[in-house]
Amino acid sequence: MAGDAVLLAAVSLLSACQQSYFAFRVGRTRLKCKVMPPAVTGSLEFERVFRAQQNCVEFYPVFLIALWMAGWYFNQVFASCLGLAYIYSRHKYFWGYSEAAEKRMGGFLSSLGILALLTVLGALGIANVFLDEYLDVHVGKKLGRYF
Amino acid sequence: MAGDAVLLAAVSLLSACQQSYFAFRVGRTRLKCKVMPPAVTGSLEFERVFRAQQNCVEFYPVFLIALWMAGWYFNQVFASCLGLAYIYSRHKYFWGYSEAAEKRMGGFLSSLGILALLTVLGALGIANVFLDEYLDVHVGKKLGRYF
Amino acid sequence: MAGDAVLLAAVSLLSACQQSYFAFRVGRTRLKCKVMPPAVTGSLEFERVFRAQQNCVEFYPVFLIALWMAGWYFNQVFASCLGLAYIYSRHKYFWGYSEAAEKRMGGFLSSLGILALLTVLGALGIANVFLDEYLDVHVGKKLGRYF
Repeated sequence: MAGDAVLLAAVSLLSACQQSYFAFRVGRTRLKCKVMPPAVTGSLEFERVFRAQQNCVEFYPVFLIALWMAGWYFNQVFASCLGLAYIYSRHKYFWGYSEAAEKRMGGFLSSLGILALLTVLGALGIANVFLDEYLDVHVGKKLGRYF
Repeated sequence: MAGDAVLLAAVSLLSACQQSYFAFRVGRTRLKCKVMPPAVTGSLEFERVFRAQQNCVEFYPVFLIALWMAGWYFNQVFASCLGLAYIYSRHKYFWGYSEAAEKRMGGFLSSLGILALLTVLGALGIANVFLDEYLDVHVGKKLGRYF
Repeated sequence: MAGDAVLLAAVSLLSACQQSYFAFRVGRTRLKCKVMPPAVTGSLEFERVFRAQQNCVEFYPVFLIALWMAGWYFNQVFASCLGLAYIYSRHKYFWGYSEAAEKRMGGFLSSLGILALLTVLGALGIANVFLDEYLDVHVGKKLGRYF
């Protein structure tokens, strides 16, 4: 278990640190804009930072599932690289949204694209193992013959 | 690893797609109801769709843990079927809530029931492995003798 | 797979139950304070309970990643004990915040400390496996020689 998922583990831990950092930024902006808990409205700047973090929170478990499925069932190194690209996209998204609502789209769309790619790779890998395991069809090996 | 969790992986990836779809519906309703980011209030229709998605987000990691624990420690096929039922319940919940706040209860209660069942199965499976591993009590084998 | 992660599995399932319980408390407070869905504002008591749960939701996937990485790559028993301490901290945080916004800090800071410790342990374990696997440097064995 340990060795064949170490890159996925490293990317996951890095993304967990990023999530904590986003939460920390929300706390800082709360103090700066004097939005007292439990309120989450009252300052447009705080609301932007808060929504940016909330959106990252919403997509985080989806990202983790897509990353690990693509890494386990398709290719660990490729999935981990896409994972790093996703973390970078979310970084751009968060800082863009913090400045202005219009600046959020670039990072958001690239993060969605990476998520879609990870999901497709995971689905292909899962389909391959499923055919192999349950229906005894060896697509991977047949494709391997041509390369 | 790959072979003995392929059904759980497939159900997880499908539920990740569902989560993304819910997020997409929130974005669409945002445009339709002209609720400009970062605001999340102002239109009752938007608020319903948004709350429906938020509730699914809240329960998503709980669902994933319950699904994988029940699948690993109890029975993969049974847990995956319950996972599919959960996805369907969440689908009903989301669309019910989108229409009217009263219509959310059916899907919500059935999703909670499935979650409780998955949790109980996972706990039974974990308890069995724990007794086996740490206390050398073989409940599974003893029960197996009677069936 | 099953045997060498059973403590992590048990702690994860327990924390999933805690998350569900927090969601249940939000529902109860909703009824008590007569905040009708989809609204999430209007009563200060409800807003506090709601924000407390939302914060737990935000950190939950981060906690799960930190727990499993520390447990897989560092030490399962130690990570599981920290996991239990995290669950207790979140319990204190949730009830503190429910009573008054000022009472949330104790549980919150201790939960953050535990999360940081789990992350550091996970990172150390991952770095060790990475060096071992990809660069053929055996830090763990070298350290082991001195103890």
